[in-house]
Amino acid sequence: MEELKPSPANSSSLTPLGFLERAAAVYGDCPSVIYNTTTYTWSQTHRRCLQLASSISSIGIQRGQVVSVFAPNVPAMYELHFAVPMAGAVLNNINIRLDPPTVSKLLLHSESKLIFVDIMSLSLVRDAIWLFPPTVTSPPLLVLIEDDGFSRINSFSAVDVVDTYEGLVSKGDMNFEWARPRTDWDPFVLNYTSGTTSSPKGVVHCHRGAFIVTVCSLIDWFVPKQAVYLWTLPMFHANGWSFPWGMAAIGGTNICLRKFDPSTVYDLIKRHEVTHMCGAPVILNMLSNTPREPLENPVQILTGGAPPPAPVLTRMESLGFRVTHEYGLTETGGISVFCAWKPQWDHLSVTERARLKARQGVRTIGLTDADVVDPESGVSVKRDGSTMGEIVLRGGCVMLGYLKDPEGTNKCMREDGWFYTGDVAVMHSDGYMEIKDRSKDVIISGGENISSVDIESVLYTHPAVNEAAVVGRPDEYWGETPCAFVSLMAAGDDGIAREREIIEYCKSRLPKFMVPKTVVIIQHLPKSAVGKIQKSVLRDMAKALRPGHSRIISPL
Amino acid sequence: MEELKPSPANSSSLTPLGFLERAAAVYGDCPSVIYNTTTYTWSQTHRRCLQLASSISSIGIQRGQVVSVFAPNVPAMYELHFAVPMAGAVLNNINIRLDPPTVSKLLLHSESKLIFVDIMSLSLVRDAIWLFPPTVTSPPLLVLIEDDGFSRINSFSAVDVVDTYEGLVSKGDMNFEWARPRTDWDPFVLNYTSGTTSSPKGVVHCHRGAFIVTVCSLIDWFVPKQAVYLWTLPMFHANGWSFPWGMAAIGGTNICLRKFDPSTVYDLIKRHEVTHMCGAPVILNMLSNTPREPLENPVQILTGGAPPPAPVLTRMESLGFRVTHEYGLTETGGISVFCAWKPQWDHLSVTERARLKARQGVRTIGLTDADVVDPESGVSVKRDGSTMGEIVLRGGCVMLGYLKDPEGTNKCMREDGWFYTGDVAVMHSDGYMEIKDRSKDVIISGGENISSVDIESVLYTHPAVNEAAVVGRPDEYWGETPCAFVSLMAAGDDGIAREREIIEYCKSRLPKFMVPKTVVIIQHLPKSAVGKIQKSVLRDMAKALRPGHSRIISPL
Repeated sequence: MEELKPSPANSSSLTPLGFLERAAAVYGDCPSVIYNTTTYTWSQTHRRCLQLASSISSIGIQRGQVVSVFAPNVPAMYELHFAVPMAGAVLNNINIRLDPPTVSKLLLHSESKLIFVDIMSLSLVRDAIWLFPPTVTSPPLLVLIEDDGFSRINSFSAVDVVDTYEGLVSKGDMNFEWARPRTDWDPFVLNYTSGTTSSPKGVVHCHRGAFIVTVCSLIDWFVPKQAVYLWTLPMFHANGWSFPWGMAAIGGTNICLRKFDPSTVYDLIKRHEVTHMCGAPVILNMLSNTPREPLENPVQILTGGAPPPAPVLTRMESLGFRVTHEYGLTETGGISVFCAWKPQWDHLSVTERARLKARQGVRTIGLTDADVVDPESGVSVKRDGSTMGEIVLRGGCVMLGYLKDPEGTNKCMREDGWFYTGDVAVMHSDGYMEIKDRSKDVIISGGENISSVDIESVLYTHPAVNEAAVVGRPDEYWGETPCAFVSLMAAGDDGIAREREIIEYCKSRLPKFMVPKTVVIIQHLPKSAVGKIQKSVLRDMAKALRPGHSRIISPL
Repeated sequence: MEELKPSPANSSSLTPLGFLERAAAVYGDCPSVIYNTTTYTWSQTHRRCLQLASSISSIGIQRGQVVSVFAPNVPAMYELHFAVPMAGAVLNNINIRLDPPTVSKLLLHSESKLIFVDIMSLSLVRDAIWLFPPTVTSPPLLVLIEDDGFSRINSFSAVDVVDTYEGLVSKGDMNFEWARPRTDWDPFVLNYTSGTTSSPKGVVHCHRGAFIVTVCSLIDWFVPKQAVYLWTLPMFHANGWSFPWGMAAIGGTNICLRKFDPSTVYDLIKRHEVTHMCGAPVILNMLSNTPREPLENPVQILTGGAPPPAPVLTRMESLGFRVTHEYGLTETGGISVFCAWKPQWDHLSVTERARLKARQGVRTIGLTDADVVDPESGVSVKRDGSTMGEIVLRGGCVMLGYLKDPEGTNKCMREDGWFYTGDVAVMHSDGYMEIKDRSKDVIISGGENISSVDIESVLYTHPAVNEAAVVGRPDEYWGETPCAFVSLMAAGDDGIAREREIIEYCKSRLPKFMVPKTVVIIQHLPKSAVGKIQKSVLRDMAKALRPGHSRIISPL
């Protein structure tokens, strides 16, 4: 059979871009995108994307060049997920909550040639470009995404803005021959990870990877034909976990949303009969804390980034949400592990269901393999639910690598064929994995690996604690000892007495070696632009503590 | 970005085989396969397939060698869809309705090393091997698939049978390291097309193609988690259109069925709460002709091979079936074009719905492109619903090629990057295609292309006609003229008067150039082993007609 080789008829590259053309053929008259008073059909979205891709090409953007986008979940953001790669360019969404110095660094690193910028992010982008070194003689061109909800600004006439978004759409050719990928491995998107520590890394995914994660996420989450999807998850987070392309595959309706707000979300669910949405647990928390009548129809909600806490799960379910827990990384282009629900779990108690749902789960059908291994030996850990190891993944949805960072790429994509996630987990006897920590956040004390998440879980049950984070504090004898930083519910409650009381509280609930030796009460925990607690800052603070003393040397 | 290349972590080959391991992890305790009084769980199926793969390896089957299977839809047939390729071998299902000379030819052509044979096909396979030329010194080994429903036969002890199926399962190692494909393009299955004319062709598909058609068929047909699938479609027909692997991806239940029988099917639907099934229109016809109470719950039924006739559709829907029409070929590994249903069509009349549903439709999300083109110029036909052209397809589910037939492969997989299907169709204005004929069945009369299907449709409406087939009859003046062969409802109804009356009937319903110049009444239309009308035989018969006469020279 060796003579049978791939040929043009069977080896055209996998890509999710073709789903758009098919959606136009099948669901041409059905709503594709709804935003405030604007509704597009799939025919219109298809035509608009072709026109936009044509204009991006006309501007002079070449195959493989980077086009950046700064936008919330407005229709333009959705369309750009097709139009930019249909012009042959690489789509680079940038988190609109970053600061100008970071944005400046990302734009330079990506060598972005063109930037689509939402009207509300224009000053951020201008400030970022203003920070470019003088050696950069041709900064990227700007295209302004206007919004009927905001008055048009004169800045459009400024020299740095080449056109408006709608200007490009209207000038484009709807018969544009879009740039199909030449191989499965052609770069498709570039996403910078919001690293809590080191400088951000540019994750590059190819067309094949995006195709795999898109179709497999639809199957694993069982998204039906013409689902109504509410965009509560920012598309600039790992391309909205691939669902911009997935909605085209099933002819769904995208309900756009500029800004998350629980009341607005409930109104949109009711008005558009929303069936599906995604969001981090904080979104679930906010929704479940907003008093409401239960939903008329159940809404599927997919959550990831951290396990949903049991009380939040219970409240969400009583409101009529059906919560699915997944785990993914920017490096896997979206979902890579699913807490696939077993029918027999339906009959368990609420607490037990929450415990099971807090586990990350099993690989999606798009991954070839997933495991928890000893990061030194690469050997699988015991399936005992307690031995910690690193989550490793293998399969088509793993990134091509980090842009301009072969060292970083080789560090996580090793010769043994695994992608090392840096997440520390245990493997349960049923083959479901559960995250315990980021590997760099594991505290090694007297040779014992301590999960900071386990200590934090106990701290969160203390009634006075608002937020808590635990890091390792250098210790001559133990190597490291757990050091807890906590903020309290009530101001003025701090003091040595409270710190000691928290330590006592942990003593009665944790093994001795896991009890924080130090508790530091601070007003606010340091956070990154996307709201992640910055453990690297806390580690520096822990190092700076005076020996034998738990108080911070310099006030925050 | 050129430095970012595929690496082991992201380039493991696409294959549907991994779905089995995942089904065991998620749905381990749920039923995978049910047959009579036997029920397996996904854990058991996973284990049994590993054991069987291990035994196939132990027998000495090497990577890339062919293993043939002769079986109806029994559990062994399902398991072999995983076990054979997990041993690294190429799965070759052979239609159990073929005759020994054909089977002999296929076994020799495929160089099959091992044959799994159902107890009811043992004499067929033995007869076929007996026909091998004496130069073949080592014929394939046989493994007998027994069935509790049949008494065990002594022939098992015969020298040519190496073991029973259950013997191999029980001897195997459940910790067998299954043979993962080394590339996306490794051969996976070999299926011989039941050609109505020339010698059968061996269609080879690779792992990547099978992965794509499997996941995309699940999405396009919207098969939900844990569907209950009744095996009315033979798995030896293009691997049951990929659903053996698809059921593992969604943790469904396979209801096995040795022989199609309407009453049994209705009983199984009720007993197992069947949700999904597939079958040719003849299956729909038989089901709809069996008087029944409507189904308690709707059953999705996918049909292909020919458009379902309107009255059958109406009866099926009133019984509670939801019919979806698809189009595929052995060469596309299953479904390639779907009559994707538009929500606005729900409100049309029964006749109009049937007309729309009879169209083959639009490409699946797994195909890159599909079109109807002029086969000479390769240019798309007008989207007018009347200009005929050939259906061409492009995408990952198109076969690698025909085994040992580079000429045949190159003829249909052309340099312009299309796979030419040989099916003649029109393209409607909405982008849905509709088949008019096989290209070799088109009649060219006086320069006009005539679809034999269009004439046959009219003939079928004649109350006296049972079956009808139209071919071209050589004609000095016109080149060809349409020649109709019909069998009648009532015997003894034939005669010149009836033939003339049928021609008159057509005259009032067809354009003049399409009216059959000749009508030949015969008792039975010649059919292939799978029940397809053999137009090649009819063409020979048409050639043999005496000039100016419509009667057959030699009786059938």
